[in-house]
Amino acid sequence: MIKRLAVIGVGLIGGSLALALKKNGQVAQVIGYARSEAVRHEALQLGIIDEAAASIADAVQQADMVFVAVPMGAMAAVLAELAPYVNEKTIITDGGSAKQQVIEAAKASLGSLFPNFVPGHPIAGTEKSGPSAAFAELYEAHRVVLTPTSETRHDALEQVQQMWQQVGADVFVMDAEQHDVVLAATSHLPHVLAFNLVGMLAQRDDCEAVLRYAAGGFRDFSRIASSDAIMWRDICLGNREAVLDLLQQYRAGLAQIEAAIRTGDGDYLSTFFNQAKQARDSRFAEPGLTDNSEV
Amino acid sequence: MIKRLAVIGVGLIGGSLALALKKNGQVAQVIGYARSEAVRHEALQLGIIDEAAASIADAVQQADMVFVAVPMGAMAAVLAELAPYVNEKTIITDGGSAKQQVIEAAKASLGSLFPNFVPGHPIAGTEKSGPSAAFAELYEAHRVVLTPTSETRHDALEQVQQMWQQVGADVFVMDAEQHDVVLAATSHLPHVLAFNLVGMLAQRDDCEAVLRYAAGGFRDFSRIASSDAIMWRDICLGNREAVLDLLQQYRAGLAQIEAAIRTGDGDYLSTFFNQAKQARDSRFAEPGLTDNSEV
Repeated sequence: MIKRLAVIGVGLIGGSLALALKKNGQVAQVIGYARSEAVRHEALQLGIIDEAAASIADAVQQADMVFVAVPMGAMAAVLAELAPYVNEKTIITDGGSAKQQVIEAAKASLGSLFPNFVPGHPIAGTEKSGPSAAFAELYEAHRVVLTPTSETRHDALEQVQQMWQQVGADVFVMDAEQHDVVLAATSHLPHVLAFNLVGMLAQRDDCEAVLRYAAGGFRDFSRIASSDAIMWRDICLGNREAVLDLLQQYRAGLAQIEAAIRTGDGDYLSTFFNQAKQARDSRFAEPGLTDNSEV
Repeated sequence: MIKRLAVIGVGLIGGSLALALKKNGQVAQVIGYARSEAVRHEALQLGIIDEAAASIADAVQQADMVFVAVPMGAMAAVLAELAPYVNEKTIITDGGSAKQQVIEAAKASLGSLFPNFVPGHPIAGTEKSGPSAAFAELYEAHRVVLTPTSETRHDALEQVQQMWQQVGADVFVMDAEQHDVVLAATSHLPHVLAFNLVGMLAQRDDCEAVLRYAAGGFRDFSRIASSDAIMWRDICLGNREAVLDLLQQYRAGLAQIEAAIRTGDGDYLSTFFNQAKQARDSRFAEPGLTDNSEV
């Protein structure tokens, strides 16, 4: 049971955790902070938080658990701002999408209290944002990854793990480097690829005419290019090393396919495509999918 | 009304056209040819064709309409084989996914009868193939693109257009070059990109561990990597120029994103990502989509 939860950033991610813990009776009091007074007020009115703090200092000072749920680009500044006001009992966790960068920032800011920091990443979200988008069921049956370092206090990890389990999440523990590679491969790189395709087509004079013929396959493939640009800028910069590494590999792979098409090396193409097909089919069995369709 | 339709390749594409025309009473007789005798027999038993031809010559000799529905890789050989057996009244059309290559092959094979050839591309399909996958409703409300050349007989174009409209398709006429670019951009390149991503991950030692965390966004994005490898090899080679051109542009775009991440140029990233988002949102309005989700 959390006595006083401080939520920094009371949007979809922070707000939903607060609502879920309240709903399940796992928190006595929630104090929230948002940069904008209007947002704080909204969160208060929606019952997401019990008290709105006028500053990060006010929010965290008497909290036993702090959840930092701000965009990746604001993470380092928030951690630096809260550091002087937390004590050796305060557990601090976050919701950032790239863990190594947040860990570095936390280490730099928290100093001797760094073992109290439990890096986390709830893999959940919707297309909406802000306090009004928050709902208590967001994390049910969703994955939350925690990436403790060798210095992380074991009891702090355990409490954060329990908190997420109490709101219905499946909690996985892995190291931050692995997390960043896994997310770069399965989420960050695919977003870059989709943005790059649609952005490239958007720059064509005949963009409208081209997209008129785009059908189901394209719609599914490009769906993630409808994601928020600022959020994805921050994630790309936040998970810089892993994303760059995979991008380079990806470009090299494309160059090989390009060379095979140029030289008419059909064997290379069919072998490579088939490896991909087998890997995907073994991971996602989706009977009845119109996968061979060219559309 | 078609008197005698010859279908070369009696699988999903050819078989479905035959079934649809029969269902609507738009064809008196269907004769079919497939390389494999077992497949011919199957098509006969399923009522897709009324007569199985033992050779391409036999199939086309008395037909007033010939539909070539073989894989892209077999198109040129089939056109060469049928050319001596068609006459000045026979209309020939096809279902190949890349039009310029098929047109070149048809021109080379058909000679003075080339004006009787109406290049076509029904943009439809399912994950299944073979005669048993064919069904009369496949083309209903699907796009069929016809790409006549300056030499194509006007009445031939009209008859092929009517045939497709009779089975419920929306017929579009454009030139072959435009078709090939449009399909490369909205279908062929996306398939290559998805194959390359999943193929790259499949080659990693930690592939299974990585894919374990892949969620909805990745599933949608990678769906087309479950497509048939041989079909996509043939399409890549068949639409070589357009695919190579777009692949190069795509790699150049990725290199720019990579440079922006490397130098921390957040403005470039957010501007470019946002252009992509706007272009996609304006084409596909999908309310309620979980697009901002990172999963």
